[in-house]
This record gives sequence, C-alpha cells and structure tokens, in this order.
Amino acid sequence: MAVRVDLNISLDGVAMPADPTPENPMGEDWGRLVADYMATKTFRERVFRDTSGAGTTGVDDRYAAAYFEGIGAEVMGAAMFGLHSFPDDPDWRGWWGDEPPFEVPVIVLTHRERAPLSFANGTRFEFSSESITDAVARATDLANGADVRVGGGLSTVRSALAAGLVDRLHVAVRPVILGRGGRLWDDLRNLDECYTVTSEVAESGVVHVTFAR
Amino acid sequence: MAVRVDLNISLDGVAMPADPTPENPMGEDWGRLVADYMATKTFRERVFRDTSGAGTTGVDDRYAAAYFEGIGAEVMGAAMFGLHSFPDDPDWRGWWGDEPPFEVPVIVLTHRERAPLSFANGTRFEFSSESITDAVARATDLANGADVRVGGGLSTVRSALAAGLVDRLHVAVRPVILGRGGRLWDDLRNLDECYTVTSEVAESGVVHVTFAR
Repeated sequence: MAVRVDLNISLDGVAMPADPTPENPMGEDWGRLVADYMATKTFRERVFRDTSGAGTTGVDDRYAAAYFEGIGAEVMGAAMFGLHSFPDDPDWRGWWGDEPPFEVPVIVLTHRERAPLSFANGTRFEFSSESITDAVARATDLANGADVRVGGGLSTVRSALAAGLVDRLHVAVRPVILGRGGRLWDDLRNLDECYTVTSEVAESGVVHVTFAR
Repeated sequence: MAVRVDLNISLDGVAMPADPTPENPMGEDWGRLVADYMATKTFRERVFRDTSGAGTTGVDDRYAAAYFEGIGAEVMGAAMFGLHSFPDDPDWRGWWGDEPPFEVPVIVLTHRERAPLSFANGTRFEFSSESITDAVARATDLANGADVRVGGGLSTVRSALAAGLVDRLHVAVRPVILGRGGRLWDDLRNLDECYTVTSEVAESGVVHVTFAR
C-alpha cells in the first residue's frame, strides 16, 4: 500500500501551464508537457480508448503502464475533475467522458456539494470538502490494500507532498523550458531528503525521476 | 569553435545557492549542488591538484574531463573571480590560488579597473567592463580556434544565454530540492527550441542534460 503521484513537468519545473481558457483548459503549453506521455500505447488505450495498438512502447510506455497498475482509489482536486470550468452546471460530468480512465473510487476535493457519479467501468466520483490528509486516509480504506493515487492538479499534489503523505513521486521531465505557469518544487526545500531518488532517460528524451520512500 | 557553458544545478533549477557569506561565499547549499562533480578524479586533479589518482571515474568524470578539454579562452563574472568578496583589496588575486585551473586567457567582467594577473600555468586574468557579447567575441579571438567557455556566475551565464551566444549548454542536475537561491531557467522560455537536447544519467544519480546547437 503506497500513496503515489505521477506528474509531467518541464525542465524548469512547470507542472501547470499558464493561461488556461475555457477553450484550452490546460493552457497552451499543455501539449509540450505531455506529448511523449500521450504518444504512448498505454495512454492511447486507457485514455483515448484507441484499440488499434498504435503508440510508443519504450521507457515512456513502461511508466505509463505503471501509472495505471495497482491503484485502488484516487484523490483529485476540483479543477482536475473539471468543476472550475463549469461551476454552475450541476449536470456537468467532468472532462473524462463516459469511460473515465480511473476505474476505481475517486474522491474529488471541493467545497460544493454534489451527488456522486458512477460509471459502468468502475469509476465512481464522490465529492468532499475534507482535508487532503483525511481524503488520503479515506482513499486508503477505499483502496482495500491497493495503492492510492493523488492525481492532481498541481495544488492538490503540492499539498499532499507538503503534508508528507506521498510514498512515491514520479515526475516525467520533458526537456522544454516553459518559463511560466505553476511550478512543482516551490517551497518543497529538502523534499529529496525523505526519499531515495533515481532517474532514467527515455528514448523520447524525457527524464523519468522517481522519489521513493 | 563553440561557446560552451557548464553548470551544476538542483532539480528545482537553482544554480546559485542563497545566503553567501564571507566565510561561505558560495552559500551553504553549494556542497549539495557540486558534491558529485567534486568527487570526480578530474576535478580532484585539475582543481585540488590531487595527483593521487583518487576520485570517481564514471559518467560524471567523463563530463568533468570534457569540461576542461578544448577550451582556449574563458569569460567570467566578477563574483566568480572573487572581486565581490574583497572589493577594496587591489592585491586580492581571486579564489583560485597559485595554479588557477583555467590555463588560458580569462576575461573577468567588472567595472573596476585592475591590472591583468598572469600565472605560470598559462592562466591570465584580464579585467574588462565590456558587454558579454563583446567579451565573448574577444575571447573567441583569444581562443585562436579553440572553444570559449562562459564560466559563471549565474548572471553572466544567463546574460550569455539570453543573448543567444551559447552553442552548447551542459547542466549537471543533482536530484536535490533547494527551494531558494538563483535559478537558471527563469525568463528563458523556449530556450530548448534553439537546441537539440539530450540527457544521460550518471552512476551518482546526477542527470546530465546537454543543449547543443
């Protein structure tokens, strides 16, 4: 049982591109952060539901596959679900379509009250205003011995890291310099001292850095 | 003939630790940035003049050796020479001892007028208030067909990068989070688009990232 985080960041540490808009909710630089992750066979299968077998199968795909393995419950912020984009629409079912790629219980942290949303593939979103610590503890129960993922967005991940809740942090560092946006590492001085840190370079040029307890 | 930069940075991009003092002129975190570089056989030979053969000989040492190869002239800021620490002592000969590891002409950028300093091993410091662009052009002449290094400190390197003067940037990224100090990448958005970027992980865990034109 471990609490896990996976993030795509730039070489300058940006995890959340600047200037999101309703048309481009992740910001214009999002594609530059996640291009190699989205190119993997696993991402195409799990998120795009592309069953053609297309996609890369190297180191990036190994990490993408690991991302989806062994997770029993997830915690995410309201923005990652999509609440901030359509805050006044009670019927808005988030960004994730009819087959959300989670397939486990997902606790969405928000101060708005909303009814849970269940999907045929096992994904069940529930909405809660509890603290990140309480949410991770409850997700641990829901995961029933499997791992818990703190999925995002950036502020949710950073609060979990600052609270010492994360057992394994994997960052896929794409060698681009974005120069603006939300940075992962700010105010996390000496975070490395709580972990063993290992790195691996993918064929794409992405550097996979893993902090493990 | 290429203009080259080598820097040690943290995973959060800090190249110049915070809070330098006269006793600890590079800041208390300096050792955490450069530990693996200073452990190399090449560094020990070239900077500490340790001829015992001690030191690491893996990937980090390969980069350390490359650092010293093929350089015909160097440009550095006043702080890297040491002028800021003893600004009023005209006899201060810098941090570098009687055998400075450069062994080539070094242009030190400063608005103070000082006489050149020559050493038996070929190192010759001259002091100039010219622009970084003019200094690099003049160093290129002095290098006589060999490469020019922009050695540091951080502001000198950043001005050279911003001016598009650097042909090859090598950063040794040590997987530590310092959280404070001067950061390399700020305001260098899209720097990667001018280069081919490659990465390699050393036995020490340091990630060597090279931007080459």
